[in-house]
Amino acid sequence: MSKFPLAADAALIEEALGRCLHEPGARQAELYRAMRYSLLDGGKRLRPALLLEFCRLSGGTAEQALPFACAIEMVHTYSLIHDDLPCMDDAATRRGRASNHKVFGEAMALLAGDGLLTEAFRVMLSPEAVQAAGTARAAEAALLLAEACGPAGMVAGQAVDIRAEGRPLPLSELEQMDAWKTGALIQAAAAMGCAVGGASPELRETAKEYAAALGLAFQIEDDLLDAIGTEEAVGKPLHSDAEQEKCTYVTLLGQDKAREEVLRLTERAVRALEPYGDAARPLMELARYLAGRNT
Amino acid sequence: MSKFPLAADAALIEEALGRCLHEPGARQAELYRAMRYSLLDGGKRLRPALLLEFCRLSGGTAEQALPFACAIEMVHTYSLIHDDLPCMDDAATRRGRASNHKVFGEAMALLAGDGLLTEAFRVMLSPEAVQAAGTARAAEAALLLAEACGPAGMVAGQAVDIRAEGRPLPLSELEQMDAWKTGALIQAAAAMGCAVGGASPELRETAKEYAAALGLAFQIEDDLLDAIGTEEAVGKPLHSDAEQEKCTYVTLLGQDKAREEVLRLTERAVRALEPYGDAARPLMELARYLAGRNT
Repeated sequence: MSKFPLAADAALIEEALGRCLHEPGARQAELYRAMRYSLLDGGKRLRPALLLEFCRLSGGTAEQALPFACAIEMVHTYSLIHDDLPCMDDAATRRGRASNHKVFGEAMALLAGDGLLTEAFRVMLSPEAVQAAGTARAAEAALLLAEACGPAGMVAGQAVDIRAEGRPLPLSELEQMDAWKTGALIQAAAAMGCAVGGASPELRETAKEYAAALGLAFQIEDDLLDAIGTEEAVGKPLHSDAEQEKCTYVTLLGQDKAREEVLRLTERAVRALEPYGDAARPLMELARYLAGRNT
Repeated sequence: MSKFPLAADAALIEEALGRCLHEPGARQAELYRAMRYSLLDGGKRLRPALLLEFCRLSGGTAEQALPFACAIEMVHTYSLIHDDLPCMDDAATRRGRASNHKVFGEAMALLAGDGLLTEAFRVMLSPEAVQAAGTARAAEAALLLAEACGPAGMVAGQAVDIRAEGRPLPLSELEQMDAWKTGALIQAAAAMGCAVGGASPELRETAKEYAAALGLAFQIEDDLLDAIGTEEAVGKPLHSDAEQEKCTYVTLLGQDKAREEVLRLTERAVRALEPYGDAARPLMELARYLAGRNT
Protein backbone atom coordinates (compact mmCIF):
# COMPACT_ATOMS: atom_id res chain seq x y z
CA MET A 1 0.00 0.00 0.00
CA SER A 2 1.36 3.43 -0.93
CA LYS A 3 1.73 6.32 1.47
CA PHE A 4 -1.34 8.37 2.49
CA PRO A 5 -1.07 11.36 0.12
CA LEU A 6 -2.34 13.91 2.64
CA ALA A 7 0.17 12.88 5.33
CA ALA A 8 1.39 16.46 5.83
CA ASP A 9 -2.18 17.63 6.48
CA ALA A 10 -2.74 14.65 8.78
CA ALA A 11 0.32 15.64 10.84
CA LEU A 12 -1.00 19.21 11.26
CA ILE A 13 -4.37 17.81 12.30
CA GLU A 14 -2.83 15.33 14.72
CA GLU A 15 -1.05 18.13 16.46
CA ALA A 16 -4.19 20.30 16.62
CA LEU A 17 -6.29 17.41 17.95
CA GLY A 18 -3.76 16.84 20.71
CA ARG A 19 -4.19 20.46 21.78
CA CYS A 20 -7.94 20.94 21.45
CA LEU A 21 -9.21 18.82 24.36
CA HIS A 22 -7.85 20.43 27.47
CA GLU A 23 -9.16 18.81 30.61
CA PRO A 24 -10.66 21.52 32.81
CA GLY A 25 -10.04 19.78 36.14
CA ALA A 26 -9.15 16.57 37.94
CA ARG A 27 -12.76 15.51 38.38
CA GLN A 28 -13.22 15.30 34.62
CA ALA A 29 -9.98 13.37 34.14
CA GLU A 30 -11.53 10.00 33.29
CA LEU A 31 -14.06 11.49 30.87
CA TYR A 32 -11.34 13.36 29.00
CA ARG A 33 -9.15 10.26 29.03
CA ALA A 34 -11.99 8.33 27.40
CA MET A 35 -12.50 11.03 24.76
CA ARG A 36 -8.79 11.27 23.98
CA TYR A 37 -8.40 7.48 23.89
CA SER A 38 -10.58 7.29 20.79
CA LEU A 39 -9.78 10.70 19.28
CA LEU A 40 -6.03 10.16 19.33
CA ASP A 41 -5.93 6.56 18.19
CA GLY A 42 -4.04 6.92 14.96
CA GLY A 43 -6.88 7.29 12.48
CA LYS A 44 -6.02 8.37 8.93
CA ARG A 45 -7.67 11.80 9.43
CA LEU A 46 -9.30 11.52 6.01
CA ARG A 47 -12.23 13.86 6.69
CA PRO A 48 -10.26 16.69 8.31
CA ALA A 49 -7.55 16.44 5.63
CA LEU A 50 -10.23 16.80 2.96
CA LEU A 51 -11.50 19.87 4.77
CA LEU A 52 -8.01 21.40 4.87
CA GLU A 53 -7.40 20.75 1.18
CA PHE A 54 -10.70 22.29 0.08
CA CYS A 55 -10.10 25.29 2.33
CA ARG A 56 -6.71 25.84 0.65
CA LEU A 57 -8.18 25.32 -2.82
CA SER A 58 -10.73 28.03 -1.92
CA GLY A 59 -7.99 30.49 -1.00
CA GLY A 60 -8.09 29.95 2.79
CA THR A 61 -5.32 28.81 5.10
CA ALA A 62 -4.72 25.68 7.14
CA GLU A 63 -4.79 27.82 10.25
CA GLN A 64 -8.34 28.95 9.46
CA ALA A 65 -9.39 25.39 8.71
CA LEU A 66 -7.91 23.56 11.71
CA PRO A 67 -10.67 24.13 14.31
CA PHE A 68 -13.22 22.85 11.80
CA ALA A 69 -10.97 19.94 10.86
CA CYS A 70 -10.74 18.97 14.54
CA ALA A 71 -14.50 19.27 14.86
CA ILE A 72 -15.29 16.90 12.00
CA GLU A 73 -12.83 14.33 13.36
CA MET A 74 -14.49 14.62 16.79
CA VAL A 75 -17.86 13.92 15.19
CA HIS A 76 -16.45 10.96 13.26
CA THR A 77 -14.89 9.61 16.47
CA TYR A 78 -18.10 10.02 18.50
CA SER A 79 -19.99 8.08 15.82
CA LEU A 80 -17.51 5.21 16.04
CA ILE A 81 -17.69 5.07 19.86
CA HIS A 82 -21.49 4.96 19.82
CA ASP A 83 -21.50 2.50 16.89
CA ASP A 84 -19.30 0.09 18.83
CA LEU A 85 -21.58 0.05 21.93
CA PRO A 86 -23.21 -3.27 22.85
CA CYS A 87 -26.68 -2.03 21.81
CA MET A 88 -25.31 -1.13 18.34
CA ASP A 89 -22.59 -3.23 16.64
CA ASP A 90 -21.19 -4.59 19.93
CA ALA A 91 -17.60 -4.34 18.66
CA ALA A 92 -14.79 -5.34 21.01
CA THR A 93 -12.02 -3.76 18.93
CA ARG A 94 -11.50 -0.70 16.75
CA ARG A 95 -8.36 0.12 14.77
CA GLY A 96 -6.59 -2.81 16.39
CA ARG A 97 -7.25 -1.73 19.98
CA ALA A 98 -9.96 -2.41 22.53
CA SER A 99 -13.05 -0.33 21.74
CA ASN A 100 -13.90 2.56 24.04
CA HIS A 101 -16.54 0.80 26.12
CA LYS A 102 -14.27 -2.22 26.63
CA VAL A 103 -11.77 0.08 28.33
CA PHE A 104 -13.98 2.63 30.10
CA GLY A 105 -17.32 0.84 30.44
CA GLU A 106 -20.55 1.45 28.56
CA ALA A 107 -21.71 4.49 30.52
CA MET A 108 -18.42 6.36 30.19
CA ALA A 109 -18.18 5.47 26.47
CA LEU A 110 -21.68 6.83 25.93
CA LEU A 111 -20.67 10.07 27.67
CA ALA A 112 -17.34 10.26 25.82
CA GLY A 113 -19.29 10.15 22.56
CA ASP A 114 -21.78 12.76 23.76
CA GLY A 115 -18.87 14.91 24.92
CA LEU A 116 -17.02 14.71 21.61
CA LEU A 117 -20.13 15.60 19.61
CA THR A 118 -20.72 18.65 21.80
CA GLU A 119 -17.05 19.69 21.80
CA ALA A 120 -17.10 19.71 18.01
CA PHE A 121 -19.55 22.60 18.07
CA ARG A 122 -17.75 24.38 20.90
CA VAL A 123 -14.48 24.26 18.97
CA MET A 124 -16.04 25.60 15.75
CA LEU A 125 -17.68 28.52 17.56
CA SER A 126 -14.77 29.26 19.92
CA PRO A 127 -13.33 32.80 19.85
CA GLU A 128 -10.18 31.52 18.09
CA ALA A 129 -12.12 29.75 15.32
CA VAL A 130 -14.49 32.66 14.81
CA GLN A 131 -11.64 35.15 14.74
CA ALA A 132 -9.62 33.18 12.21
CA ALA A 133 -12.46 32.31 9.83
CA GLY A 134 -14.95 35.14 10.45
CA THR A 135 -18.26 34.68 12.25
CA ALA A 136 -20.40 34.10 9.17
CA ARG A 137 -18.08 31.44 7.72
CA ALA A 138 -17.70 29.70 11.09
CA ALA A 139 -21.47 29.61 11.58
CA GLU A 140 -21.99 28.30 8.04
CA ALA A 141 -19.43 25.53 8.52
CA ALA A 142 -20.99 24.53 11.85
CA LEU A 143 -24.43 24.41 10.21
CA LEU A 144 -23.08 22.19 7.41
CA LEU A 145 -21.69 19.77 9.99
CA ALA A 146 -24.92 19.74 12.02
CA GLU A 147 -26.95 18.99 8.90
CA ALA A 148 -24.60 16.24 7.79
CA CYS A 149 -24.25 14.38 11.07
CA GLY A 150 -27.80 14.76 12.40
CA PRO A 151 -31.03 12.81 11.94
CA ALA A 152 -31.33 13.88 8.30
CA GLY A 153 -27.78 12.60 7.67
CA MET A 154 -25.39 10.32 9.53
CA VAL A 155 -27.75 9.43 12.38
CA ALA A 156 -30.46 8.57 9.82
CA GLY A 157 -28.04 6.14 8.18
CA GLN A 158 -27.36 4.45 11.50
CA ALA A 159 -31.08 4.23 12.26
CA VAL A 160 -31.75 2.57 8.90
CA ASP A 161 -28.76 0.28 9.43
CA ILE A 162 -29.93 -1.11 12.79
CA ARG A 163 -33.27 -2.00 11.23
CA ALA A 164 -31.72 -3.48 8.06
CA GLU A 165 -29.47 -6.18 9.49
CA GLY A 166 -30.29 -9.68 8.35
CA ARG A 167 -32.60 -8.60 5.56
CA PRO A 168 -31.57 -8.03 1.95
CA LEU A 169 -31.68 -4.42 0.75
CA PRO A 170 -32.13 -3.37 -2.86
CA LEU A 171 -29.10 -1.49 -4.27
CA SER A 172 -30.90 1.86 -4.20
CA GLU A 173 -31.64 1.51 -0.46
CA LEU A 174 -28.07 0.47 0.29
CA GLU A 175 -26.80 3.51 -1.60
CA GLN A 176 -29.13 5.82 0.34
CA MET A 177 -28.08 4.30 3.67
CA ASP A 178 -24.38 4.68 2.87
CA ALA A 179 -24.89 8.19 1.52
CA TRP A 180 -26.18 9.05 5.00
CA LYS A 181 -23.85 6.90 7.10
CA THR A 182 -20.55 7.62 5.35
CA GLY A 183 -21.15 9.97 2.46
CA ALA A 184 -22.74 12.81 4.43
CA LEU A 185 -19.68 13.41 6.60
CA ILE A 186 -17.25 13.16 3.67
CA GLN A 187 -19.37 15.61 1.70
CA ALA A 188 -19.56 17.88 4.76
CA ALA A 189 -15.76 17.88 5.00
CA ALA A 190 -15.45 19.21 1.45
CA ALA A 191 -18.30 21.69 1.83
CA MET A 192 -17.00 22.97 5.17
CA GLY A 193 -13.56 23.52 3.67
CA CYS A 194 -15.20 25.55 0.91
CA ALA A 195 -17.24 27.55 3.44
CA VAL A 196 -14.24 28.38 5.65
CA GLY A 197 -12.07 29.29 2.66
CA GLY A 198 -14.78 31.32 0.93
CA ALA A 199 -14.99 29.21 -2.24
CA SER A 200 -16.69 30.35 -5.44
CA PRO A 201 -20.05 28.75 -6.34
CA GLU A 202 -18.22 26.78 -9.07
CA LEU A 203 -15.71 25.31 -6.65
CA ARG A 204 -18.51 24.44 -4.24
CA GLU A 205 -20.23 22.50 -7.04
CA THR A 206 -16.98 20.73 -7.89
CA ALA A 207 -16.42 19.85 -4.23
CA LYS A 208 -19.87 18.32 -4.07
CA GLU A 209 -19.27 16.21 -7.16
CA TYR A 210 -15.82 15.09 -6.04
CA ALA A 211 -16.94 14.22 -2.51
CA ALA A 212 -20.05 12.35 -3.63
CA ALA A 213 -17.97 10.11 -5.90
CA LEU A 214 -15.18 9.72 -3.36
CA GLY A 215 -17.59 8.89 -0.52
CA LEU A 216 -19.33 6.14 -2.44
CA ALA A 217 -16.05 4.70 -3.76
CA PHE A 218 -14.74 4.72 -0.19
CA GLN A 219 -17.73 2.74 1.08
CA ILE A 220 -17.58 0.15 -1.70
CA GLU A 221 -13.85 -0.23 -1.12
CA ASP A 222 -14.56 -0.74 2.59
CA ASP A 223 -16.95 -3.56 1.75
CA LEU A 224 -14.31 -5.09 -0.55
CA LEU A 225 -11.72 -4.87 2.22
CA ASP A 226 -14.07 -6.55 4.66
CA ALA A 227 -14.64 -9.36 2.18
CA ILE A 228 -11.14 -9.93 0.79
CA GLY A 229 -8.55 -7.88 2.75
CA THR A 230 -6.15 -9.21 5.38
CA GLU A 231 -6.78 -8.41 9.02
CA GLU A 232 -3.24 -7.13 9.39
CA ALA A 233 -3.57 -4.57 6.61
CA VAL A 234 -7.07 -3.42 7.59
CA GLY A 235 -6.48 -3.26 11.35
CA LYS A 236 -9.86 -4.63 12.40
CA PRO A 237 -11.57 -8.02 12.46
CA LEU A 238 -12.76 -8.87 8.97
CA HIS A 239 -15.75 -10.69 7.52
CA SER A 240 -17.91 -8.95 10.12
CA ASP A 241 -20.39 -8.03 7.38
CA ALA A 242 -20.91 -11.66 6.44
CA GLU A 243 -21.22 -12.72 10.08
CA GLN A 244 -23.87 -10.08 10.74
CA GLU A 245 -25.55 -10.93 7.42
CA LYS A 246 -25.15 -7.36 6.33
CA CYS A 247 -26.09 -6.37 2.86
CA THR A 248 -23.04 -4.81 1.13
CA TYR A 249 -21.95 -3.78 -2.36
CA VAL A 250 -19.97 -7.01 -2.54
CA THR A 251 -22.96 -9.20 -1.69
CA LEU A 252 -25.16 -7.24 -4.10
CA LEU A 253 -22.79 -6.66 -7.03
CA GLY A 254 -20.12 -9.30 -6.60
CA GLN A 255 -16.42 -8.48 -6.24
CA ASP A 256 -15.65 -7.77 -9.89
CA LYS A 257 -18.49 -5.35 -10.43
CA ALA A 258 -17.81 -3.69 -7.09
CA ARG A 259 -14.18 -3.13 -8.11
CA GLU A 260 -15.23 -1.69 -11.48
CA GLU A 261 -17.56 0.69 -9.67
CA VAL A 262 -14.74 1.91 -7.40
CA LEU A 263 -12.56 2.67 -10.44
CA ARG A 264 -15.39 4.42 -12.29
CA LEU A 265 -16.20 6.62 -9.29
CA THR A 266 -12.53 7.40 -8.68
CA GLU A 267 -12.14 8.58 -12.26
CA ARG A 268 -15.19 10.76 -11.87
CA ALA A 269 -13.76 12.35 -8.70
CA VAL A 270 -10.40 13.03 -10.35
CA ARG A 271 -11.99 14.46 -13.52
CA ALA A 272 -14.14 16.88 -11.50
CA LEU A 273 -10.96 18.53 -10.19
CA GLU A 274 -9.11 18.83 -13.48
CA PRO A 275 -9.99 22.53 -13.99
CA TYR A 276 -8.08 23.32 -10.80
CA GLY A 277 -4.77 21.94 -12.05
CA ASP A 278 -1.78 21.45 -9.78
CA ALA A 279 -3.47 22.93 -6.70
CA ALA A 280 -5.92 20.03 -6.78
CA ARG A 281 -3.27 17.34 -7.20
CA PRO A 282 -3.28 16.20 -3.53
CA LEU A 283 -7.04 15.62 -3.74
CA MET A 284 -6.65 13.68 -6.99
CA GLU A 285 -3.96 11.53 -5.41
CA LEU A 286 -6.18 10.96 -2.42
CA ALA A 287 -8.95 9.56 -4.62
CA ARG A 288 -6.51 7.19 -6.36
CA TYR A 289 -4.97 6.17 -3.02
CA LEU A 290 -8.34 5.30 -1.48
CA ALA A 291 -9.25 3.18 -4.50
CA GLY A 292 -6.03 1.19 -4.16
CA ARG A 293 -6.18 0.39 -0.46
CA ASN A 294 -6.45 -3.36 -0.99
CA THR A 295 -3.73 -3.70 -3.60
CA MET B 1 -49.62 23.44 43.55
CA SER B 2 -50.08 26.81 41.85
CA LYS B 3 -50.00 27.35 38.11
CA PHE B 4 -46.64 27.45 36.27
CA PRO B 5 -46.02 31.22 36.01
CA LEU B 6 -44.44 31.06 32.55
CA ALA B 7 -47.34 29.11 31.04
CA ALA B 8 -47.75 31.60 28.17
CA ASP B 9 -44.06 31.19 27.23
CA ALA B 10 -44.41 27.42 27.56
CA ALA B 11 -47.33 27.45 25.10
CA LEU B 12 -45.27 29.41 22.54
CA ILE B 13 -42.41 26.95 22.99
CA GLU B 14 -44.68 23.93 22.71
CA GLU B 15 -45.93 25.17 19.38
CA ALA B 16 -42.40 25.90 18.12
CA LEU B 17 -41.14 22.48 19.24
CA GLY B 18 -43.95 20.82 17.35
CA ARG B 19 -42.83 22.59 14.18
CA CYS B 20 -39.04 22.32 14.44
CA LEU B 21 -38.54 18.59 13.82
CA HIS B 22 -39.76 17.98 10.29
CA GLU B 23 -39.15 14.45 9.16
CA PRO B 24 -37.29 14.57 5.86
CA GLY B 25 -38.55 11.25 4.50
CA ALA B 26 -40.30 7.97 5.22
CA ARG B 27 -37.06 6.11 5.91
CA GLN B 28 -36.33 8.35 8.88
CA ALA B 29 -39.89 8.00 10.24
CA GLU B 30 -39.08 5.82 13.24
CA LEU B 31 -36.05 7.91 14.27
CA TYR B 32 -38.10 11.12 14.19
CA ARG B 33 -40.94 9.38 16.04
CA ALA B 34 -38.48 8.44 18.78
CA MET B 35 -37.14 12.02 18.97
CA ARG B 36 -40.62 13.53 19.06
CA TYR B 37 -41.85 10.97 21.62
CA SER B 38 -39.50 12.43 24.24
CA LEU B 39 -39.37 16.03 23.03
CA LEU B 40 -43.16 16.47 23.02
CA ASP B 41 -43.98 14.68 26.25
CA GLY B 42 -45.45 17.53 28.25
CA GLY B 43 -42.39 18.80 30.09
CA LYS B 44 -42.67 22.11 31.90
CA ARG B 45 -40.33 23.86 29.42
CA LEU B 46 -38.50 25.56 32.28
CA ARG B 47 -35.19 26.11 30.48
CA PRO B 48 -36.62 27.49 27.20
CA ALA B 49 -39.06 29.70 29.13
CA LEU B 50 -36.14 31.14 31.12
CA LEU B 51 -34.38 31.85 27.84
CA LEU B 52 -37.43 33.65 26.44
CA GLU B 53 -37.85 35.78 29.55
CA PHE B 54 -34.21 36.86 29.64
CA CYS B 55 -34.31 37.63 25.93
CA ARG B 56 -37.33 39.91 26.52
CA LEU B 57 -35.72 41.52 29.56
CA SER B 58 -32.70 42.27 27.31
CA GLY B 59 -34.88 44.02 24.76
CA GLY B 60 -35.26 41.11 22.32
CA THR B 61 -38.41 39.38 21.12
CA ALA B 62 -39.87 35.92 21.62
CA GLU B 63 -39.57 35.36 17.89
CA GLN B 64 -35.82 35.89 18.06
CA ALA B 65 -35.53 33.61 21.07
CA LEU B 66 -37.64 30.66 19.93
CA PRO B 67 -35.06 28.71 17.86
CA PHE B 68 -32.65 28.88 20.80
CA ALA B 69 -35.41 27.95 23.24
CA CYS B 70 -36.18 24.87 21.14
CA ALA B 71 -32.47 24.02 21.02
CA ILE B 72 -32.01 24.06 24.78
CA GLU B 73 -35.09 21.89 25.27
CA MET B 74 -33.71 19.43 22.68
CA VAL B 75 -30.45 19.24 24.62
CA HIS B 76 -32.32 18.73 27.89
CA THR B 77 -34.41 15.98 26.27
CA TYR B 78 -31.38 14.19 24.79
CA SER B 79 -29.74 14.18 28.22
CA LEU B 80 -32.83 12.55 29.75
CA ILE B 81 -33.01 9.88 27.03
CA HIS B 82 -29.33 8.95 27.45
CA ASP B 83 -29.63 9.15 31.28
CA ASP B 84 -32.47 6.63 31.23
CA LEU B 85 -30.55 4.05 29.16
CA PRO B 86 -29.78 0.70 30.83
CA CYS B 87 -26.06 1.49 31.07
CA MET B 88 -26.87 4.74 32.93
CA ASP B 89 -29.85 5.00 35.35
CA ASP B 90 -31.80 2.16 33.70
CA ALA B 91 -35.11 3.98 34.15
CA ALA B 92 -38.28 2.35 32.83
CA THR B 93 -40.43 5.47 33.07
CA ARG B 94 -40.06 9.22 32.61
CA ARG B 95 -42.74 11.83 33.28
CA GLY B 96 -45.27 9.05 33.86
CA ARG B 97 -44.69 7.30 30.52
CA ALA B 98 -42.44 4.50 29.33
CA SER B 99 -38.90 5.81 28.81
CA ASN B 100 -37.62 6.15 25.25
CA HIS B 101 -35.63 2.91 25.12
CA LYS B 102 -38.56 0.93 26.54
CA VAL B 103 -40.63 2.00 23.54
CA PHE B 104 -38.06 2.14 20.72
CA GLY B 105 -35.26 -0.11 21.96
CA GLU B 106 -31.83 0.85 23.22
CA ALA B 107 -30.17 1.45 19.85
CA MET B 108 -32.92 3.74 18.57
CA ALA B 109 -33.04 5.63 21.88
CA LEU B 110 -29.28 6.17 21.69
CA LEU B 111 -29.69 7.55 18.16
CA ALA B 112 -32.70 9.67 19.11
CA GLY B 113 -30.55 11.32 21.78
CA ASP B 114 -27.67 11.82 19.36
CA GLY B 115 -30.11 13.24 16.83
CA LEU B 116 -31.65 15.72 19.25
CA LEU B 117 -28.25 16.99 20.42
CA THR B 118 -27.19 17.56 16.82
CA GLU B 119 -30.50 19.13 15.80
CA ALA B 120 -30.12 21.66 18.61
CA PHE B 121 -27.10 23.12 16.85
CA ARG B 122 -28.70 22.92 13.42
CA VAL B 123 -31.74 24.86 14.63
CA MET B 124 -29.62 27.60 16.28
CA LEU B 125 -27.55 28.10 13.12
CA SER B 126 -30.42 27.71 10.64
CA PRO B 127 -31.01 30.61 8.22
CA GLU B 128 -34.19 31.57 10.09
CA ALA B 129 -32.48 31.72 13.50
CA VAL B 130 -29.48 33.61 12.15
CA GLN B 131 -31.68 36.06 10.29
CA ALA B 132 -33.87 36.80 13.32
CA ALA B 133 -31.09 37.12 15.90
CA GLY B 134 -28.10 38.15 13.78
CA THR B 135 -25.14 35.89 13.03
CA ALA B 136 -22.93 37.05 15.90
CA ARG B 137 -25.64 36.64 18.53
CA ALA B 138 -26.70 33.26 17.17
CA ALA B 139 -23.11 32.02 17.18
CA GLU B 140 -22.58 33.31 20.73
CA ALA B 141 -25.73 31.59 22.00
CA ALA B 142 -24.73 28.32 20.32
CA LEU B 143 -21.27 28.54 21.92
CA LEU B 144 -22.83 29.14 25.36
CA LEU B 145 -24.96 26.01 24.92
CA ALA B 146 -22.01 23.90 23.73
CA GLU B 147 -19.93 24.98 26.72
CA ALA B 148 -22.74 24.29 29.16
CA CYS B 149 -23.78 20.86 27.93
CA GLY B 150 -20.37 19.46 27.01
CA PRO B 151 -17.62 17.63 28.91
CA ALA B 152 -16.78 20.76 30.92
CA GLY B 153 -20.46 21.06 31.93
CA MET B 154 -23.47 18.74 31.87
CA VAL B 155 -21.62 15.68 30.55
CA ALA B 156 -18.96 16.15 33.25
CA GLY B 157 -21.71 16.06 35.87
CA GLN B 158 -23.03 12.80 34.47
CA ALA B 159 -19.55 11.30 34.37
CA VAL B 160 -18.97 12.22 38.03
CA ASP B 161 -22.43 10.89 38.89
CA ILE B 162 -21.91 7.41 37.43
CA ARG B 163 -18.73 7.04 39.48
CA ALA B 164 -20.29 8.46 42.67
CA GLU B 165 -23.18 6.07 43.21
CA GLY B 166 -23.09 4.15 46.44
CA ARG B 167 -20.34 6.24 47.98
CA PRO B 168 -20.91 9.30 50.18
CA LEU B 169 -19.90 12.65 48.68
CA PRO B 170 -18.91 15.68 50.72
CA LEU B 171 -21.30 18.63 50.24
CA SER B 172 -18.81 20.57 48.12
CA GLU B 173 -18.51 17.68 45.65
CA LEU B 174 -22.26 17.25 45.46
CA GLU B 175 -22.67 20.96 44.74
CA GLN B 176 -20.06 20.79 41.99
CA MET B 177 -21.70 17.74 40.44
CA ASP B 178 -25.13 19.36 40.44
CA ALA B 179 -23.73 22.64 39.17
CA TRP B 180 -22.60 20.66 36.12
CA LYS B 181 -25.53 18.27 35.79
CA THR B 182 -28.41 20.69 36.32
CA GLY B 183 -27.04 24.16 36.97
CA ALA B 184 -25.03 24.51 33.76
CA LEU B 185 -28.06 24.18 31.48
CA ILE B 186 -30.21 26.50 33.62
CA GLN B 187 -27.42 29.08 33.62
CA ALA B 188 -27.01 28.63 29.87
CA ALA B 189 -30.71 29.31 29.36
CA ALA B 190 -30.40 32.69 31.08
CA ALA B 191 -27.10 33.55 29.39
CA MET B 192 -28.38 32.54 25.94
CA GLY B 193 -31.46 34.72 26.41
CA CYS B 194 -29.17 37.62 27.24
CA ALA B 195 -26.97 36.89 24.20
CA VAL B 196 -29.88 36.71 21.76
CA GLY B 197 -31.54 39.83 23.19
CA GLY B 198 -28.30 41.82 23.35
CA ALA B 199 -28.27 42.37 27.13
CA SER B 200 -26.08 44.94 28.89
CA PRO B 201 -23.12 43.65 30.91
CA GLU B 202 -25.08 44.46 34.09
CA LEU B 203 -28.06 42.36 33.05
CA ARG B 204 -25.74 39.51 32.10
CA GLU B 205 -24.27 39.60 35.62
CA THR B 206 -27.75 39.64 37.14
CA ALA B 207 -28.83 36.72 34.96
CA LYS B 208 -25.81 34.74 36.16
CA GLU B 209 -26.61 35.42 39.81
CA TYR B 210 -30.30 34.63 39.42
CA ALA B 211 -29.73 31.43 37.46
CA ALA B 212 -27.02 30.14 39.81
CA ALA B 213 -29.33 30.52 42.81
CA LEU B 214 -32.36 29.19 40.92
CA GLY B 215 -30.47 26.17 39.59
CA LEU B 216 -29.22 25.08 42.99
CA ALA B 217 -32.61 25.68 44.64
CA PHE B 218 -34.20 23.62 41.87
CA GLN B 219 -31.85 20.70 42.49
CA ILE B 220 -32.34 20.73 46.26
CA GLU B 221 -36.10 20.92 45.77
CA ASP B 222 -35.86 17.93 43.40
CA ASP B 223 -34.08 15.94 46.09
CA LEU B 224 -36.79 16.95 48.59
CA LEU B 225 -39.50 15.87 46.16
CA ASP B 226 -37.80 12.52 45.66
CA ALA B 227 -37.66 12.03 49.44
CA ILE B 228 -41.06 13.32 50.55
CA GLY B 229 -43.29 14.08 47.54
CA THR B 230 -46.14 11.94 46.24
CA GLU B 231 -45.65 9.93 43.06
CA GLU B 232 -48.85 11.40 41.61
CA ALA B 233 -47.70 14.99 41.98
CA VAL B 234 -44.15 14.39 40.79
CA GLY B 235 -45.04 12.12 37.86
CA LYS B 236 -42.14 9.69 38.27
CA PRO B 237 -41.23 6.85 40.61
CA LEU B 238 -39.96 8.29 43.88
CA HIS B 239 -37.35 7.27 46.43
CA SER B 240 -35.09 6.30 43.54
CA ASP B 241 -32.23 8.22 45.17
CA ALA B 242 -32.45 6.15 48.34
CA GLU B 243 -32.72 2.91 46.35
CA GLN B 244 -29.64 3.77 44.32
CA GLU B 245 -27.90 4.96 47.49
CA LYS B 246 -27.36 8.35 45.91
CA CYS B 247 -25.92 11.12 47.93
CA THR B 248 -28.38 14.08 47.93
CA TYR B 249 -28.92 17.37 49.75
CA VAL B 250 -31.55 15.62 51.85
CA THR B 251 -29.22 12.82 52.92
CA LEU B 252 -26.44 15.34 53.61
CA LEU B 253 -28.36 18.23 55.22
CA GLY B 254 -31.58 16.65 56.42
CA GLN B 255 -35.02 17.82 55.26
CA ASP B 256 -35.27 20.93 57.42
CA LYS B 257 -31.93 22.39 56.48
CA ALA B 258 -32.51 21.50 52.82
CA ARG B 259 -35.82 23.38 52.88
CA GLU B 260 -34.18 26.41 54.52
CA GLU B 261 -31.54 26.38 51.81
CA VAL B 262 -34.19 26.40 49.06
CA LEU B 263 -35.86 29.45 50.62
CA ARG B 264 -32.56 31.28 51.08
CA LEU B 265 -31.55 30.68 47.46
CA THR B 266 -34.99 31.66 46.17
CA GLU B 267 -34.80 34.96 48.01
CA ARG B 268 -31.36 35.57 46.56
CA ALA B 269 -32.68 34.92 43.03
CA VAL B 270 -35.64 37.25 43.52
CA ARG B 271 -33.52 40.04 45.04
CA ALA B 272 -31.06 39.93 42.14
CA LEU B 273 -33.88 40.94 39.79
CA GLU B 274 -35.33 43.78 41.86
CA PRO B 275 -33.60 46.56 39.87
CA TYR B 276 -35.57 45.41 36.80
CA GLY B 277 -38.99 46.01 38.39
CA ASP B 278 -42.17 44.80 36.75
CA ALA B 279 -40.48 43.46 33.63
CA ALA B 280 -38.75 40.90 35.82
CA ARG B 281 -41.89 39.85 37.69
CA PRO B 282 -42.46 36.60 35.73
CA LEU B 283 -38.92 35.48 36.58
CA MET B 284 -39.44 36.32 40.26
CA GLU B 285 -42.68 34.37 40.27
CA LEU B 286 -40.91 31.47 38.63
CA ALA B 287 -38.34 31.31 41.43
CA ARG B 288 -41.08 31.32 44.08
CA TYR B 289 -43.08 28.73 42.16
CA LEU B 290 -40.16 26.33 41.89
CA ALA B 291 -39.49 26.62 45.62
CA GLY B 292 -43.09 25.69 46.38
CA ARG B 293 -43.46 22.63 44.17
CA ASN B 294 -44.05 20.23 47.06
CA THR B 295 -46.50 22.35 49.00
